[in-house]
Amino acid sequence: MSNEEIENRIFKALAAPVRRRILDALKDNPMTTGELADRFDEIDRTTVMQHLRVLEAADLIIPVKRGRVRWNHLNPLPIKDIHDRWIGPHAAGAVDKLAKLKAGLEGEVEISAKASSE
Amino acid sequence: MSNEEIENRIFKALAAPVRRRILDALKDNPMTTGELADRFDEIDRTTVMQHLRVLEAADLIIPVKRGRVRWNHLNPLPIKDIHDRWIGPHAAGAVDKLAKLKAGLEGEVEISAKASSE
Repeated sequence: MSNEEIENRIFKALAAPVRRRILDALKDNPMTTGELADRFDEIDRTTVMQHLRVLEAADLIIPVKRGRVRWNHLNPLPIKDIHDRWIGPHAAGAVDKLAKLKAGLEGEVEISAKASSE
Repeated sequence: MSNEEIENRIFKALAAPVRRRILDALKDNPMTTGELADRFDEIDRTTVMQHLRVLEAADLIIPVKRGRVRWNHLNPLPIKDIHDRWIGPHAAGAVDKLAKLKAGLEGEVEISAKASSE
């Protein structure tokens, strides 16, 4: 499989909101497939498993079997690759400052909007 | 527009190889639309402009008009947001080491494959 095909799989996997929310759930800790099915109980279990397969095919999750239980781990490396592809090491510091500046400005706008509505 | 819709636009924009290559071209320096059309001369100019519109709608490029010339700048903030969403500050160092380890192992595999083929 070419790099381009691998990348297509990654971005197509990330294009679905529910798959992004599954990765959110796995950010801090791995979860079993059963735990994920319980967490996303508005979706039927078969569909959750299909989403897990799409994420696994994109290498965004790594399944680890322990006995009959499948633990799903978030794989951060493809995410890091996206960052490093378009934000080089020399730019990372500047982007960080820019993000903080933007967050600060938005915070101030919210504060002043809140103050003026009070 | 909800965050989810904004994110859908970003990942759909990134799902096309040619749009990723346009962002690659803008990584270090902004380029005019004319320069981009010349760089991607296997694609007709109208199609290049359509891709630029998709990237702009996803906030991945910021156009700056100077006279009659449109300069396209890569906007790194949505890229940084993708990274920070799934790789927290406490994990960033570990992921960095993991990536270097992986690159090192792949390098060694290549070297040993080269050595054994000689």
